[in-house]
Amino acid sequence: MTDPTPRSSGPRGSYAKGIARRQEILDKSIEVFARRGAKKTSLRAIAQEVGVTHAALTHYFGSLEDLLVAVYREHERRSDSEHPETPADVSPALMMRVSAEENRSIPGLIQLYSTLVATALEEEGSPAHEFATQRFGRLRIELTDRVRLLQSTGQLRDDLEPSLVAALVIAASDGLQTQWLLDPSVDHEAALEMLDNLLAGDHRR
Amino acid sequence: MTDPTPRSSGPRGSYAKGIARRQEILDKSIEVFARRGAKKTSLRAIAQEVGVTHAALTHYFGSLEDLLVAVYREHERRSDSEHPETPADVSPALMMRVSAEENRSIPGLIQLYSTLVATALEEEGSPAHEFATQRFGRLRIELTDRVRLLQSTGQLRDDLEPSLVAALVIAASDGLQTQWLLDPSVDHEAALEMLDNLLAGDHRR
Repeated sequence: MTDPTPRSSGPRGSYAKGIARRQEILDKSIEVFARRGAKKTSLRAIAQEVGVTHAALTHYFGSLEDLLVAVYREHERRSDSEHPETPADVSPALMMRVSAEENRSIPGLIQLYSTLVATALEEEGSPAHEFATQRFGRLRIELTDRVRLLQSTGQLRDDLEPSLVAALVIAASDGLQTQWLLDPSVDHEAALEMLDNLLAGDHRR
Repeated sequence: MTDPTPRSSGPRGSYAKGIARRQEILDKSIEVFARRGAKKTSLRAIAQEVGVTHAALTHYFGSLEDLLVAVYREHERRSDSEHPETPADVSPALMMRVSAEENRSIPGLIQLYSTLVATALEEEGSPAHEFATQRFGRLRIELTDRVRLLQSTGQLRDDLEPSLVAALVIAASDGLQTQWLLDPSVDHEAALEMLDNLLAGDHRR
């Protein structure tokens, strides 16, 4: 992704100002998306809702797709800094449940996520494709490590291939989120808890 | 969804001709989408690839979104007629695996599916929203019944809530399909098989 920040277009002061201005627009954009979702829109319409000119939005973010990626990344960065370290003995599905729990309070951002993933599948090499490929890759590595650790301490069945468990848990969480958005009677959390128990080898539920 | 077939605009012969013409365009559209996926496109571009006028496509299908829904429905109708009845003792995840197996041979249609779901989340009441809500609802009912039956014959753990199993299996299959499209090293089939074994209570992987 190209970085449209005017890194060398002015003296130091104006660079710092550019960064601050970009962040300010990003903060407002997150509010706008959390409220409206990723409903069919244009960069022009977003600019209006955020209260900046279309030219400014293009200058700082490039295309609409670049802006959507930037907004979702910023959302994830904030979540990460609120929960800097998930304890190592938290199960993979519980980890996804916690993040899903947060997401449910902002359905607009789940819609945005789903749009990003669909866009990623549509075009290789696009900003959304890069974002989604990296995100899934990183999450799978993180969860695979977590599974291995939990298997070594007996908290998870040790006859399961860790990387498959990781892919399965991420898939289940994403897919359940989608079903829940379309039909709130789908109990996202209970289904992930069931998966957790199956992975742990429990016979509850 | 409105039906743009000219039901009362002419004598019986022209109605039948309209139906046949619509089906012919649909058949060609499926080929086009299977090849190209749902890459950012317009009704006009599709018309050109299919080899009809933009006006004809609009006449028979309405909007681009209507066409995407019609294409995916037709794809499902064909799959169903090729496999009219899945034996009742086939496990839910195996059922999803069979349909996923078919889908993998036509990545373009998986992309199309993912675009439809994302569009569904973007706008309530849209053709894609109606399609996705119906499809998930129908699949969950179908799989819930299957789970109950398999529990009664001891082929599935009977301490699991059938509707949660159904939602979980559908979610896992959809989510794994997405991950596989972005990274073919993700073993969609093995992960679903693992879920199947967990649901059956087996200790094989």
